[in-house]
Amino acid sequence: MSVTAAGGFVATGIHAGIRRSGRDLAIVCSTAPSTGAAMLTANRVQAAPVVVTRAHLAAAQPRAVVVNSGSANAATGKRGELDALATTAEAARLLGLRSEQVLPLSTGVIGTRLPLERMLTGLRGAVSALSADGGRDAAEAIMTTDTRTKEASVSRDGFTVGGMAKGAGMIHPVLATMLAVVTTDYPLAPGEAAGFLGPAVDESFNRISVDGECSTNDAVILLANGSSGVAREPARDESFRAALHEVCADLSAQIIGDGEGATVVLEIAVTGAASDQEATAIARRVATSPLVKTAAFGRDPNWGRVLAAAGSATWNGGFARLDPELVRLAFNGTTVYARGLPLAADPELAGPSCRIELDLGLGDGAATYLASDLSYDYVRINAEYTT
Amino acid sequence: MSVTAAGGFVATGIHAGIRRSGRDLAIVCSTAPSTGAAMLTANRVQAAPVVVTRAHLAAAQPRAVVVNSGSANAATGKRGELDALATTAEAARLLGLRSEQVLPLSTGVIGTRLPLERMLTGLRGAVSALSADGGRDAAEAIMTTDTRTKEASVSRDGFTVGGMAKGAGMIHPVLATMLAVVTTDYPLAPGEAAGFLGPAVDESFNRISVDGECSTNDAVILLANGSSGVAREPARDESFRAALHEVCADLSAQIIGDGEGATVVLEIAVTGAASDQEATAIARRVATSPLVKTAAFGRDPNWGRVLAAAGSATWNGGFARLDPELVRLAFNGTTVYARGLPLAADPELAGPSCRIELDLGLGDGAATYLASDLSYDYVRINAEYTT
Repeated sequence: MSVTAAGGFVATGIHAGIRRSGRDLAIVCSTAPSTGAAMLTANRVQAAPVVVTRAHLAAAQPRAVVVNSGSANAATGKRGELDALATTAEAARLLGLRSEQVLPLSTGVIGTRLPLERMLTGLRGAVSALSADGGRDAAEAIMTTDTRTKEASVSRDGFTVGGMAKGAGMIHPVLATMLAVVTTDYPLAPGEAAGFLGPAVDESFNRISVDGECSTNDAVILLANGSSGVAREPARDESFRAALHEVCADLSAQIIGDGEGATVVLEIAVTGAASDQEATAIARRVATSPLVKTAAFGRDPNWGRVLAAAGSATWNGGFARLDPELVRLAFNGTTVYARGLPLAADPELAGPSCRIELDLGLGDGAATYLASDLSYDYVRINAEYTT
Repeated sequence: MSVTAAGGFVATGIHAGIRRSGRDLAIVCSTAPSTGAAMLTANRVQAAPVVVTRAHLAAAQPRAVVVNSGSANAATGKRGELDALATTAEAARLLGLRSEQVLPLSTGVIGTRLPLERMLTGLRGAVSALSADGGRDAAEAIMTTDTRTKEASVSRDGFTVGGMAKGAGMIHPVLATMLAVVTTDYPLAPGEAAGFLGPAVDESFNRISVDGECSTNDAVILLANGSSGVAREPARDESFRAALHEVCADLSAQIIGDGEGATVVLEIAVTGAASDQEATAIARRVATSPLVKTAAFGRDPNWGRVLAAAGSATWNGGFARLDPELVRLAFNGTTVYARGLPLAADPELAGPSCRIELDLGLGDGAATYLASDLSYDYVRINAEYTT
């Protein structure tokens, strides 16, 4: 399980005093030379650690990730970048690495400086606590409004992929932020990691929505150290690709299941679209529709809202192609609308998950999204004013 | 006031039994020959009355609008179009017009047929009740979850523009729908109305958001009959353009003020963008952000959420241009963030409205959006299950 499941990785999570209580500083480190890649937020407003992580990846092969909760170090200007650099420099010194081999990630309050002294003091304690059993502590240290840790691992064909994530949570006055660190002992050559990580993230972390927000700090990092000793061969590469995808999908599903105020997990499966891109646009539009999400909270089989959301999915400067006369729509396997007409049907919606199938009848395009509902608790969590 | 403020227009609103109680059928009619135009939803799923209105406008000069609440006549297939046609045929017969001169609009439950017999019976009563004082009754008859009528008028330079609207409300199991009918006694030649209506709608109804939804039934209709007898001249055309804009903006503001669960009206003013289109994309993104809207409900000056939303506004296949180092952000006149850094400031947010100013410092692009907040009541209204 977790980010230390793969051979040759150690981790820890400690309380450094960035938050009032609880673990708030995590390190994940490869004990052997490693390579890696990151998928980072595309938001025009990028947190300082995101800027530094990008620069470090361009300069060196990554060996360690330092993550803090309690401060996002976002909207902090050049000073914030210097704070992130100071953190990685101290971590690198303690770990015997070059500063560029350490990637910083932050989550928490926006617009406040990192409490640098606490970070630097905390790093000393954290490095001395690193262990192959530290995955759970690390997963705890990156939580914000998460109610449980998110960990996953897959072992097969002689190698392991493991990971941890934190979900779309936020604390005042801050942003939804998704962070994930995935490790593997599968052997990748320098420069290869991005090619494996990109498609896996596109099909997992990029297909979930709690509230459609895109944070300044979102990041997924992959570290690979080859400690498994397995040989590369095409079949095993496919196996690794699949394992990486499974871990990312598992962590994504855990994030949605623990989404802010979530009472039901929606799986929106679009098929028969004119293209995969249009299927994705439609699935995303349904997944982010406040009307669909409030109906889901009310356990209301409100197919009209799904149809209306699907019909207004932006794509290519207009709306994705959809002909209501060809659409088939089902809730949990019960068809509620087909060929332009509603059906007298009463789908079962009482459970903790709901599968919405939307077959457009136009082509072969398909996409699936996971989403949480929009509940009173979502509003409460995000409207609460805590100074 | 209202849709009968302009000369030569009569209206009424009656109870036809489409809803259990209250007025539910409205007619607005010009007593003199008229012309007109409509701005209709771009949703791929178009309600039957929207399809029929578009066809009728292509075939004849419009003289009357028939609006019902209680049924959206959407997702009803060809049968729904025949129902809408039967409605306009009967209204035309009673009014002594051609069927194509009558435009149908519907709002209410999706996926159920119009109760045609009640509609036809109701039309007889409605036509006999038409009067120059019927504007208020008509405005009442088009309400769904609206808590008050939306009416506006402007008189100047010898002519009048008046209108009514219903807001982003919904009833189970249905959609947010915005409808507006605007009338004027200003003289417009056939084919001219669209050229005046389009820009007015772009700057008003297209700049408001309760929840970012785009309905199957959204429509704004303008009827012009020249009854004022004023002569056309360039200066008066400008005056008409301004009056039309004012009425549309007034109705739009009323819709937001009565938005579902609204406790505060947000005015999002973006300036200094690289282009007007990018300013609009950013203003819309902030106006539809659940995090910004829940913070507004909590009266939380959460500028980080505004910044993060602005930084992820989609435009031209990517994100609209924004450099956090150049951004200035103010709440109700108090600057909270400038030149990449937060300021120690405590904006006053207790009132019923909040102006969010976002100056990007990049160019001359500007746009303003109105939005309501995201409250417990929004969730309650839209999660309630009523069969």
